[in-house]
Amino acid sequence: MRARDLVAQIPTIAVDAPVVEAAHLMVERDLPGLIVLDERGRPFTILPGTQVLRLAVPHYCQDDPALARVIDEAHADEFLRTLGGLTVRRALPDRPRELPVTDPDATVLEVAALMARTRSPLVAVVDAGRLLGAVTLNALMSRLVGA
Amino acid sequence: MRARDLVAQIPTIAVDAPVVEAAHLMVERDLPGLIVLDERGRPFTILPGTQVLRLAVPHYCQDDPALARVIDEAHADEFLRTLGGLTVRRALPDRPRELPVTDPDATVLEVAALMARTRSPLVAVVDAGRLLGAVTLNALMSRLVGA
Repeated sequence: MRARDLVAQIPTIAVDAPVVEAAHLMVERDLPGLIVLDERGRPFTILPGTQVLRLAVPHYCQDDPALARVIDEAHADEFLRTLGGLTVRRALPDRPRELPVTDPDATVLEVAALMARTRSPLVAVVDAGRLLGAVTLNALMSRLVGA
Repeated sequence: MRARDLVAQIPTIAVDAPVVEAAHLMVERDLPGLIVLDERGRPFTILPGTQVLRLAVPHYCQDDPALARVIDEAHADEFLRTLGGLTVRRALPDRPRELPVTDPDATVLEVAALMARTRSPLVAVVDAGRLLGAVTLNALMSRLVGA
């Protein structure tokens, strides 16, 4: 079995797209993150869902979540509606996470090793510069437990 | 809206349970990780799926996934069947990850701040020492985008 046998289509998002669009995609497709394409359409990093949240939370609450308790319920709901015109680029960490990439001929062991090392729940499968899709942790784990 | 309104039942696993059982649970319920209970049944950390993979991959391949390429396909499949009698405890990182915990009265902003800071896709909701369940990234993000 090779990466090509486990690959699935997964949605991508452009680095200059609105982060709200990314959030919608994650919710609708129940994904923990998305593959981000650079200005030239090449896959270059992952946008984890937790980083989208980061944009919606005031800085002083991120450092000390207990401070969020002092904001009353009505205002707390309001804070979460501030994503507005922010782009995916703004949601990325300062040092964007390495996108684990492999090719269609990679063995399952190779993909598993890459996921384990990068702690990424997905590995992009690229063939001659073209993004075929990704192998997800769940697809690989199903293989592992024979489900 | 409070944590109690977003909480969902999620499966837990005992620290001394076989890691194969954890892998089955993750696959069947399509979860990125599980809440691990200590010997006294208290929630104490998260087992991320990628750490289960780590146990199934030989050490030299983890450091350099390209080395996995030299193992032929039949043997690569074989390597992934070595989880055998290993326990969840073996799969945990040396310094187990902090389990983000909150109480049922936490506001959505408080939960979002906790998820953003710990980069965890779930937050355990504990009421007077009892685990009620967890708020998942997806549940919170749905609230965020009004889905």
